[in-house]
Amino acid sequence: MRSLSPSAVAPASPSLSPPAVESSSEAGALYLRIAHTLAEAIRRGGLTRGQRMPSVRETARQQGVAISTVVQAYHWLEDARLIVARPRSGFFVAARTVTQLPEPTVARPTRRAHAVCVDVLGRRLLGQVQGSDMLSFSSGTPDPGLLDMERVRRTLVRTVQRQRAQLCHYPDPNGHVEARRALARYALHLGCSLDPEKITVTSGCMDAISLCLRAVTRPGDVVAIESPTHYSFLELLQSLHLRALEIPTHPRHGLSLDALQLALDTQDIRAVLVVPTLSNPLGSCMPVAERRRLAQMASQHQVAVIEDAVYNELVLNDELRRTVKSFDSSGHVMLCDSFTKTVAPGLRLGWVEAGRWTEDVRRLKNVQGGQTAVLELAMADLLGQAGHQAAMRKLRNAAATRLDEARGLIADSFPPRTRVSDPPGGFLLWLELPRGLDVQALQQAAQSERILVAPGTLFSSHARFKSCLRIGLGAEWSERHPQALRRVGELACRLFV
Amino acid sequence: MRSLSPSAVAPASPSLSPPAVESSSEAGALYLRIAHTLAEAIRRGGLTRGQRMPSVRETARQQGVAISTVVQAYHWLEDARLIVARPRSGFFVAARTVTQLPEPTVARPTRRAHAVCVDVLGRRLLGQVQGSDMLSFSSGTPDPGLLDMERVRRTLVRTVQRQRAQLCHYPDPNGHVEARRALARYALHLGCSLDPEKITVTSGCMDAISLCLRAVTRPGDVVAIESPTHYSFLELLQSLHLRALEIPTHPRHGLSLDALQLALDTQDIRAVLVVPTLSNPLGSCMPVAERRRLAQMASQHQVAVIEDAVYNELVLNDELRRTVKSFDSSGHVMLCDSFTKTVAPGLRLGWVEAGRWTEDVRRLKNVQGGQTAVLELAMADLLGQAGHQAAMRKLRNAAATRLDEARGLIADSFPPRTRVSDPPGGFLLWLELPRGLDVQALQQAAQSERILVAPGTLFSSHARFKSCLRIGLGAEWSERHPQALRRVGELACRLFV
Repeated sequence: MRSLSPSAVAPASPSLSPPAVESSSEAGALYLRIAHTLAEAIRRGGLTRGQRMPSVRETARQQGVAISTVVQAYHWLEDARLIVARPRSGFFVAARTVTQLPEPTVARPTRRAHAVCVDVLGRRLLGQVQGSDMLSFSSGTPDPGLLDMERVRRTLVRTVQRQRAQLCHYPDPNGHVEARRALARYALHLGCSLDPEKITVTSGCMDAISLCLRAVTRPGDVVAIESPTHYSFLELLQSLHLRALEIPTHPRHGLSLDALQLALDTQDIRAVLVVPTLSNPLGSCMPVAERRRLAQMASQHQVAVIEDAVYNELVLNDELRRTVKSFDSSGHVMLCDSFTKTVAPGLRLGWVEAGRWTEDVRRLKNVQGGQTAVLELAMADLLGQAGHQAAMRKLRNAAATRLDEARGLIADSFPPRTRVSDPPGGFLLWLELPRGLDVQALQQAAQSERILVAPGTLFSSHARFKSCLRIGLGAEWSERHPQALRRVGELACRLFV
Repeated sequence: MRSLSPSAVAPASPSLSPPAVESSSEAGALYLRIAHTLAEAIRRGGLTRGQRMPSVRETARQQGVAISTVVQAYHWLEDARLIVARPRSGFFVAARTVTQLPEPTVARPTRRAHAVCVDVLGRRLLGQVQGSDMLSFSSGTPDPGLLDMERVRRTLVRTVQRQRAQLCHYPDPNGHVEARRALARYALHLGCSLDPEKITVTSGCMDAISLCLRAVTRPGDVVAIESPTHYSFLELLQSLHLRALEIPTHPRHGLSLDALQLALDTQDIRAVLVVPTLSNPLGSCMPVAERRRLAQMASQHQVAVIEDAVYNELVLNDELRRTVKSFDSSGHVMLCDSFTKTVAPGLRLGWVEAGRWTEDVRRLKNVQGGQTAVLELAMADLLGQAGHQAAMRKLRNAAATRLDEARGLIADSFPPRTRVSDPPGGFLLWLELPRGLDVQALQQAAQSERILVAPGTLFSSHARFKSCLRIGLGAEWSERHPQALRRVGELACRLFV
């Protein structure tokens, strides 16, 4: 384990303002200028790791700005993991030991599309963990302790009381108009200026993606997907009788647009299903310039890009919250999102802006019916609350801490030449174990000790990724978790001999 | 208009016990014996129409039974529309003037299955009424005034408070176990003894039906449906790329099993989608013996029968609440249900018991994800409350009153030889206007006066039922509604000249 250069933890690009702030007031630019100056000082060693930061008041006086501007700047630095807040002591330059491990290699899937085949047994195993005594590393959803559930409960009770009349009527299948307005406001965080009239509320992100796929494909059609990809996507494609074309995906930069370009030039692809921010399982994030390019490709090839933005709130780097949809001028990008991973897994609400296929999606949605309007209105309320951004910051930081700890444990305990992803947020790590190590045997050995990990084969339709593992850090984190992760490493070492 | 013989309003069959009660205590049989005796007296004229019934106490003494048994018997007579309760005056023999009108003829659809084509424009019109100033006769869903919404609100708030932890977790995609247990208990009312482990909660009845269709068919397969049928079914089949075979359906007795038998013998049919109780739009009810026969046919032909029981609680005659599923011993009947029409349209919860296809349905459901568990638990609570049966009784009686009033208005104002259905409950009437009357012109004339009716063509995939109209009585009933219905009749007379 060795320390990484500070620049590796700092956000990569000099232009770091979140898209929603870009066009905002002078004050917005000001806090960023101060944040950048301080970030630079940390990177150059002017402010050393572990050192106490100048107080907010002091910095405000020094820079001749309002205290609130400095608070904003410090929050930005906190998000970037450059400083940490310690209760009753102020802010300190982050002293984290960052683990250096090689990153996983890029998959080279076949160039042919194929019917989807899902590893039913492996999948069932992951599903059975809830309520069992298993120590789970299978969850990418944050545990309740990291979410502000009291805020959710309060809001929901208040909404039921106030909006009781909503229970009497069939809901608008497209979603309550107030909810759609709140979502349009929220979408500014994703760099999008959307018309509430074109937003459709769904019962989750998978529901949104399913509607999009049904709107733009017919059974037998080919859909381009990331490789590796989320097993739920494979199950969805299978259930809709669609064929999958797995596109090489870089563990840091996401879907290879060059490979996609080649595929679009040579094959009849009806949709591209992509998670540009913190893709599951890789945790990769497509660079902003590539997002722009993908939107252009969609338009040129008249192909639907179905963008899953479900992890965008979890990314540490503001600019990576920006969606492909924000570059879409021709309506070929269908943006799908939900709040399952960030507000409350139990609320089951998502939404979609389906661009030029809005009417097609809504026709399908109409058959299906709407969601419970009081839930939609509670969600609208929650998104507009001052506490929402603070809750998101807390969540991102908690995830970052877990990722760091887990990467450290992996570096210490797994066999040499183990490769692991280094995602800028979220709750997922992707491990590539040295060739020759039987991951299935490892998974079974772990399982016999009541430890659950997801084998790589679940994330491809063709039994690829046989030497990979996904480690999910979302489940409730106990003292036993670090031990258990270390134990998986030991088992791997034993199998490797 | 002339008075009907009393036997026409009384339930048709001598065996009237609801299936759930069949196997219950002696007391259960006792109240029915008393009810039957009194019903017989009313039918024979021993108790004349409009006459005050003997008081509960008096009857109890006379028959030598407990007061509660007589109360049960009187409730049964009320459900059968043989007596009415008047506040502070006791019970009276029903004095309703029952309208005698010829019933609609049976459709003779083509014998070929065909791709489904939906009247998009007509359908859109019906969807746009909510919130407009239109006087709507398009709704089969009861208006809020007929539902016990305060009970729903109270229960929901209490459930959110008590079950807040449910908001933190992904719900069980099959539904919360407590909800599934409550549904199994509820299913006793439908004559079914179901295993909670085989029940799957859905986000409404259409969701349940959609899952069933997807589990048993592939795109291009043929599904047998009633003719006329609910337009939502046509939209659903279309969205799943299924072909429809329309089976003749009798306005009183429902789907012709002889015609279905012929179709099953000669064609490859993968599923039969049927609403045995109060089918939409006809309001027909399949006789109990036919329900048994349908279950047997499903088993013999190894074909899935998808049974929609969404209106079963609305039927006046207890025995017609019994499902085809209750006769299913081979697992070929997939029972779908929801509480949209009876408890709260806004709650969006349904369920399915998919028989031998339970695993297939659950696999699809798993991809889709679950519902909000607090809603499921609130529903479970509501179904178990003492007030539930009282609310159902109130709803059935209100519907019966509206049906009677509307049939009277139709007899008075529509052209001679207009035929109209006489459903034993629910909120829908099906009109067949004299040949030569342009129903499309009638619909447009009504629409220009801000009155909305559903043209018959919406209920078939092949522009059949051109001389039919569906009149929905579910919308909030105002003083303007009788006038408006009369006005539609006047417009029809004018067009008929």
